[in-house]
Amino acid sequence: MTSEIDIETKNEQEMLDITSLVEKELKENDAKNGICFLYCPHTTCGIAINEGADENVRKDVINKLNKLIAPDDKYLHTEGNSHSHIKSILTGNSIFVFVRDFKLELGRWQTLYLCEFDGPRSRKLWLKFISDNN
Amino acid sequence: MTSEIDIETKNEQEMLDITSLVEKELKENDAKNGICFLYCPHTTCGIAINEGADENVRKDVINKLNKLIAPDDKYLHTEGNSHSHIKSILTGNSIFVFVRDFKLELGRWQTLYLCEFDGPRSRKLWLKFISDNN
Amino acid sequence: MTSEIDIETKNEQEMLDITSLVEKELKENDAKNGICFLYCPHTTCGIAINEGADENVRKDVINKLNKLIAPDDKYLHTEGNSHSHIKSILTGNSIFVFVRDFKLELGRWQTLYLCEFDGPRSRKLWLKFISDNN
Repeated sequence: MTSEIDIETKNEQEMLDITSLVEKELKENDAKNGICFLYCPHTTCGIAINEGADENVRKDVINKLNKLIAPDDKYLHTEGNSHSHIKSILTGNSIFVFVRDFKLELGRWQTLYLCEFDGPRSRKLWLKFISDNN
Repeated sequence: MTSEIDIETKNEQEMLDITSLVEKELKENDAKNGICFLYCPHTTCGIAINEGADENVRKDVINKLNKLIAPDDKYLHTEGNSHSHIKSILTGNSIFVFVRDFKLELGRWQTLYLCEFDGPRSRKLWLKFISDNN
Repeated sequence: MTSEIDIETKNEQEMLDITSLVEKELKENDAKNGICFLYCPHTTCGIAINEGADENVRKDVINKLNKLIAPDDKYLHTEGNSHSHIKSILTGNSIFVFVRDFKLELGRWQTLYLCEFDGPRSRKLWLKFISDNN
């Protein structure tokens, strides 16, 4: 009942557009109209929805988070990725989106992102769907 | 199946109480007991739940976010609202609330807010409802 | 239909592992496979999912949030806990987790936390469950 989506991130930090990956999964599971619940089982990446038109917005987000939560600050955790954990708590590790006709019902300027804060890595996303017809 | 709520924000930045607007929509859709899923299709405003009693809490939230994510910082995005995008990622653009007897089941001190970070504007909120009786 | 979980926090600020408390409630409500929706009715604590293995991660999160949103900064709200309100908006006050065989379907390194930002206090968590068999 829970689908799993494989995602390969390419950079140490990035907001990766996963809209079409998720819609492919919806189609394959005959998930036509309802609510899509997305859950990220990792602790150093998150999920967010925001502008997709100008890639500078994504860069500004990553830059600002790096200023607020510096990768090289003094942390107790010795693996060098405390900043990634903190960022993923702030973005959150789950999200829901409405689905209409197998498509994510996003706003005009919205894109669905996996927020990688400790990559590049192989990531997974878990998906459940509740149909309007329940 | 997805309801749409129209909201007019009044200020450039504000936390606007939308509790009664959402409850009106629940009543009109005969949504009595269950879970209300709220989704904001915009990229420069968010949704949050927090204290409604003392309006200074709302002011402190806006002030602190402005200190952390200054509107006039150096951003790559040239539309002047990068700060609004970043803030909306931090608050999130969706939320769920339980519903009992057509009312949002909020805690004693809680109020439901649309967080406007790039207003004033006409905003929309999308709503789906899953009944306990499913 | 909404379960209530009682939680006693022990410190002024802490991330408290509530995984087993929530799983106990799932078991008692015969909630086997589906989605668990958790809602925190307070305005100065939040819910988050992150690493549970190294307790230093939790300390780094609390320390960094205290640097960004200092408890003793100049706030308009006079109760001394504006920082707690702001932090709880950033973590969020609700979360969903998938459930398999009465267990929270967490990632390998994930733990479910109540984030106390104004304790120690008696807290409540509300829970609804939607079964896969709906």
